[in-house]
Amino acid sequence: MKYLSILGSTGSIGTQTIDVVNQHPDRFIIVALVAHHNIDLLEQQILAHEPIMAGVVDESAYKALKSRYHGPTKLYCGEEALIAAATLQEATMVITAIVGAAGISSTVEAIKAGKTIGLANKETLVAGGFLITSLAKEHNVKILPIDSEHSAIFQCLEGQVKENVDKLIITASGGPLRTWTREQIQTATAADCLRHPTWSMGNKITIDSASLFNKGLEVIEAHWLFDFDFEHIDVVVHPQSIVHSMIMMKDGAILAQLGNPDMREPIQYAMTYPDRIPLVYKTLEFKELLELQFMPPRYDDFPALKLAFEVGRQGGFKPAVFNAANETAVYAFLEDKISFPQIYQTVTSVLDAMESEDDFTLDNLLAIDQWARCKASELIK
Amino acid sequence: MKYLSILGSTGSIGTQTIDVVNQHPDRFIIVALVAHHNIDLLEQQILAHEPIMAGVVDESAYKALKSRYHGPTKLYCGEEALIAAATLQEATMVITAIVGAAGISSTVEAIKAGKTIGLANKETLVAGGFLITSLAKEHNVKILPIDSEHSAIFQCLEGQVKENVDKLIITASGGPLRTWTREQIQTATAADCLRHPTWSMGNKITIDSASLFNKGLEVIEAHWLFDFDFEHIDVVVHPQSIVHSMIMMKDGAILAQLGNPDMREPIQYAMTYPDRIPLVYKTLEFKELLELQFMPPRYDDFPALKLAFEVGRQGGFKPAVFNAANETAVYAFLEDKISFPQIYQTVTSVLDAMESEDDFTLDNLLAIDQWARCKASELIK
Repeated sequence: MKYLSILGSTGSIGTQTIDVVNQHPDRFIIVALVAHHNIDLLEQQILAHEPIMAGVVDESAYKALKSRYHGPTKLYCGEEALIAAATLQEATMVITAIVGAAGISSTVEAIKAGKTIGLANKETLVAGGFLITSLAKEHNVKILPIDSEHSAIFQCLEGQVKENVDKLIITASGGPLRTWTREQIQTATAADCLRHPTWSMGNKITIDSASLFNKGLEVIEAHWLFDFDFEHIDVVVHPQSIVHSMIMMKDGAILAQLGNPDMREPIQYAMTYPDRIPLVYKTLEFKELLELQFMPPRYDDFPALKLAFEVGRQGGFKPAVFNAANETAVYAFLEDKISFPQIYQTVTSVLDAMESEDDFTLDNLLAIDQWARCKASELIK
Repeated sequence: MKYLSILGSTGSIGTQTIDVVNQHPDRFIIVALVAHHNIDLLEQQILAHEPIMAGVVDESAYKALKSRYHGPTKLYCGEEALIAAATLQEATMVITAIVGAAGISSTVEAIKAGKTIGLANKETLVAGGFLITSLAKEHNVKILPIDSEHSAIFQCLEGQVKENVDKLIITASGGPLRTWTREQIQTATAADCLRHPTWSMGNKITIDSASLFNKGLEVIEAHWLFDFDFEHIDVVVHPQSIVHSMIMMKDGAILAQLGNPDMREPIQYAMTYPDRIPLVYKTLEFKELLELQFMPPRYDDFPALKLAFEVGRQGGFKPAVFNAANETAVYAFLEDKISFPQIYQTVTSVLDAMESEDDFTLDNLLAIDQWARCKASELIK
């Protein structure tokens, strides 16, 4: 039996995690649920699962829930709720499904508390990879990827000797603007970007998918998760999102993981690892014609991906700033405050404005993350 | 250092094995070479590698070579040559790259002598799977597949817990007649069948590829090699031959092995297993558009595949007869003695004429193999 704390339970990954739990009530018990502000859905989840605790990050939403919910589940508010859920004694596994950098502190606390991490918050490793991975090693904690690409690589690497692996090949759908001309891309609206061809995800990540910032974040995440140099990480565009990622062995043999674009597959694998249990959802079959395409990314037209490799190689707090500035810029784009190309421009401007820093503590990381957000907001105004 | 005996050194797999040896002289030494009759090429190979022994199966070819070669390599003739090479004391690995059932006895002897087997002779496991696999277990001998499909499955299974694997998915190019109508298939000539779209192989296997007999043999081979029931083996047509085969895990996740259609990849992997060393040949890259298709096999139009599953399930000597009758029929087809559909008809007729047998010894196996060939020849006349 696994006892789960789900951070971000009302989001896309959170609800799908609960979906998997519902299919296997003999294997999983939810002990903590934390949402940002969607208290209607959270309340339903609380009533269905009666966790030990639940939390609402947004204070006014918390108050609204507190005033109407009087059941046995203890309610927490704000950042404290995330920490409480991440470190809850009864939890054996923490699913970090919060979007953005808010996941870092709670992941750190979960690791310190010895919880297995189901990592869906890629910003944690992008921004704090060096801190998180050394902390996980120190506490002998497993970080199991939930992103479909990283889960695929994780599955391919399983049982392989690392010395035999030459490189990781991350697939990218290419996003909704994949076939747009360079000129068209400049004019993309939020509505254009939210029409993702294969994956149904939250808004922030869907915009990142259109700009390839998301793939850039995944490249940096893969670097930390699997300890491969950026020279040994490639990106291949694969519009159908069936091959979730690949590894190339030293002798050129490629191992790949395939499946339908359904996040419940990697979620369930992280939850059952190292076991495999039947998936109740539709799995990939070959009963009709299936056509898969692969092509190199358009690095020049989607410059975020190249930039990700650059900041990844530079290391330090660069990826944290890259991530934080992008996050602020994406929300500004979603609110129509800036154009699509201005997301990238904002990020490069913030990176250029960054001062060098060599004291890589968590406090400094959070401070520079905050600085990058403020700087980006300043530039956007 | 690995010391290789290569049975079938002048054939397609044999020459490519030597090609791999030539690229890594620091890792491999050839101690024995056996060819069927191509003594011109064999003599070149002998001069280049100076093995301890060499053999020629065809007696007149042997005599011709004997009369002109006077170097240090000892020459053997006939079946004796195969056995001598398979059991040569200095050999640590035997590559069984002979086409057809001739490989069975020599593989048996190699196993008894404790040699690691690089298995390119699929008939060995098709006809004698139950004997060979139990013998290999008894002598603690590894059978490493060289067929690209089986190598792919072997690579995917590496490091996996068998209980977590639901099924094997063998890919098939579909052969040169893949897009032909049922009516057209009836009229296919040997020349039509020899135009294989992706793989360059010997004549016999190329005809088998056109009829899907080859895929049927591979299904039975996979059954013995990996110990999976026929209910847990699927075939998927994939014309580009880039995905060499796949496995589906219990949770629906599919693991696949990809590469260029170049036999030197699986040959080298069998030779270096469990290590991986750089491949000097062109490996698969994603620098330009790559399109892969997958579709179900046309079981009704290529009945050999369905028949293979049937005889595989029936077991006993059925697969041996299936294989032997097909081999005889294919050579008759290559000599224009029978039509393409008559290959299948000959096989079913021989299977129908078969008497039940329950004494599954090697001698009986070789006897029934011989019977099936005679019966097929009779029917063809």
